[in-house]
Amino acid sequence: MILAIDGVGGDNAPQAVVAGVMDALQKTDMEIWLYGPQDVLEKELDGYTYDTSKVKVIHCSEVISGEDNPIRAIRAKKDSSLVRAVMDVKEGKADAFVCAGNTGALISAASLLLGRIKGLYRPALTTPIPTDKGMAILLDVGANAECKSEWLQQFAVMGAFYAQKVCDIAQPKVGLVNIGTESGKGNDVAKKAYDLLIHQNDVNFIGNIEARRVPYGDANVIVTDGFTGNVILKMLEGTAEVLFGNVKQVFLQNLKGKLAALMVKSGMKELKQKMDYTEYGGAPVLGVDGIIVKAHGSSDKKAFSSALRQAAKFVESGVMQDIKRYFEQNAISGGAAAETV
Amino acid sequence: MILAIDGVGGDNAPQAVVAGVMDALQKTDMEIWLYGPQDVLEKELDGYTYDTSKVKVIHCSEVISGEDNPIRAIRAKKDSSLVRAVMDVKEGKADAFVCAGNTGALISAASLLLGRIKGLYRPALTTPIPTDKGMAILLDVGANAECKSEWLQQFAVMGAFYAQKVCDIAQPKVGLVNIGTESGKGNDVAKKAYDLLIHQNDVNFIGNIEARRVPYGDANVIVTDGFTGNVILKMLEGTAEVLFGNVKQVFLQNLKGKLAALMVKSGMKELKQKMDYTEYGGAPVLGVDGIIVKAHGSSDKKAFSSALRQAAKFVESGVMQDIKRYFEQNAISGGAAAETV
Repeated sequence: MILAIDGVGGDNAPQAVVAGVMDALQKTDMEIWLYGPQDVLEKELDGYTYDTSKVKVIHCSEVISGEDNPIRAIRAKKDSSLVRAVMDVKEGKADAFVCAGNTGALISAASLLLGRIKGLYRPALTTPIPTDKGMAILLDVGANAECKSEWLQQFAVMGAFYAQKVCDIAQPKVGLVNIGTESGKGNDVAKKAYDLLIHQNDVNFIGNIEARRVPYGDANVIVTDGFTGNVILKMLEGTAEVLFGNVKQVFLQNLKGKLAALMVKSGMKELKQKMDYTEYGGAPVLGVDGIIVKAHGSSDKKAFSSALRQAAKFVESGVMQDIKRYFEQNAISGGAAAETV
Repeated sequence: MILAIDGVGGDNAPQAVVAGVMDALQKTDMEIWLYGPQDVLEKELDGYTYDTSKVKVIHCSEVISGEDNPIRAIRAKKDSSLVRAVMDVKEGKADAFVCAGNTGALISAASLLLGRIKGLYRPALTTPIPTDKGMAILLDVGANAECKSEWLQQFAVMGAFYAQKVCDIAQPKVGLVNIGTESGKGNDVAKKAYDLLIHQNDVNFIGNIEARRVPYGDANVIVTDGFTGNVILKMLEGTAEVLFGNVKQVFLQNLKGKLAALMVKSGMKELKQKMDYTEYGGAPVLGVDGIIVKAHGSSDKKAFSSALRQAAKFVESGVMQDIKRYFEQNAISGGAAAETV
């Protein structure tokens, strides 16, 4: 299996990328293609001892930064790590691409260069999130700021496949984010999506889920539009950061607190791990015709390593083929294929 | 000042309502009118010693429950505590109404019976939320699941008045919830609202705010549609509940943990208070022509007491008159008054 990775994407590149690659290579059998300026990447690799047959540097002369306009950048910078790696996935040279760089550019490149799966309206950026009951899958988290109900219906199907095959969640419970649990609540898109999903027998739809119950883990697959999904993800992160920061302050405020911190150190460490999204791998762009995984912009070694291993699992699981087969056999009538991205 | 309160609204009524009334009476000079079945309320009051000239029971034969359809209920149950109290506010008999019952029914009653302030498109349910830097104001949290950009523009104005005059936040920083900080991000409503607010010189608009920064308290007034606002509020509550629950588990898991808990008890208590929404009073329905405050459904004595004191401050602040004057003088051109609620 060949995994492509953007060597210069993300806040901590290239150090954390290369460190993550080294970590992943020790844990899983894979070959890594590292995209970016050769001198930068080789200098970073020099610090490690590793099986050189497993890591190849693909020189790219251009870099897409976080500030670049996504569509303009992928059109103008053909020799960027991002565009080159996506093209190698398209041509079947690499099995998957992991990237911590510009999210908009990655989604645009995936949509425009790979295209959508046949029968699908829109791809969805899909992220694993920590909950009280373990990992859940949230989609969309930003590929589509506005969604139609039929898109949400398809997200539910893709999310369920992914949760089951890649995240090992048997019979994943699918919930639709809404501002009340009863049918008929919320905005028009959510109301209609509820009506569609309640009749979708191949998905274990548990109905509407209020945001309050998301962190409890009531649903394994949480379906919503990209605007709301982004808000959910960021509220979870921000609230956890602020609360953990405040708990730390309580422990640090005096000697008694510091002593107490030592006494609960292992328990608090486990808790932080449980709530740490970097433990859960990256965010696949589900619905494009190729395996693309967005790693968090602030990914460290551990996060890159788990994103790579998750991408490997995505490849091995065959879930891509499952999703493609599903939408071929269950094409939702009317215009999906005719619509443009 | 006469404050009306729904004696039978909320999960813990009438006990917590009456307990909250007694607490508030000790802290602020006010007269309380308690609406609901006389026998129920008088039985509850019997347990207390208080200045009987300060508390009056207004007998109502009907009750609107959480399951009632809002509009149908306020039309059918004219002798309910909710409808009777809102009518007394309308007729100027009571200065404000505090209610922990059916949110939809309260908003509908406020909109239909009191009407909107002249020049305003829509009222907004406005809730104080805890942040790392103290209280912030979030609106809308559920009165309008879908909003137009112009409504958000007006919410910003109302929120700023309220934050300044009732919450004592000088020059409140107003942020618009979006999925990126740059202009041009997000859905169409957010994009257009950004363009409107950037030209709104009488509001201290700091631009877009990502959900991640909401718990940090970067903005004092957080403006968004009712769907997103509800999601933000509930994610904040749910995430805090789950994290505090897990921290508690760490402390309880063994003897060392229990000892550690004792050592940081006061610090943790302060932290819980800081993050506890019940400390911050209720959620006013801003924009209707009368002072209506929604208390949290699960309000306890402390929450009712702070909601009552906040309502008293709302009355005393004169912010209602400020908002009315503002929208009279700054009527946004075209159809606001002509639209129906």
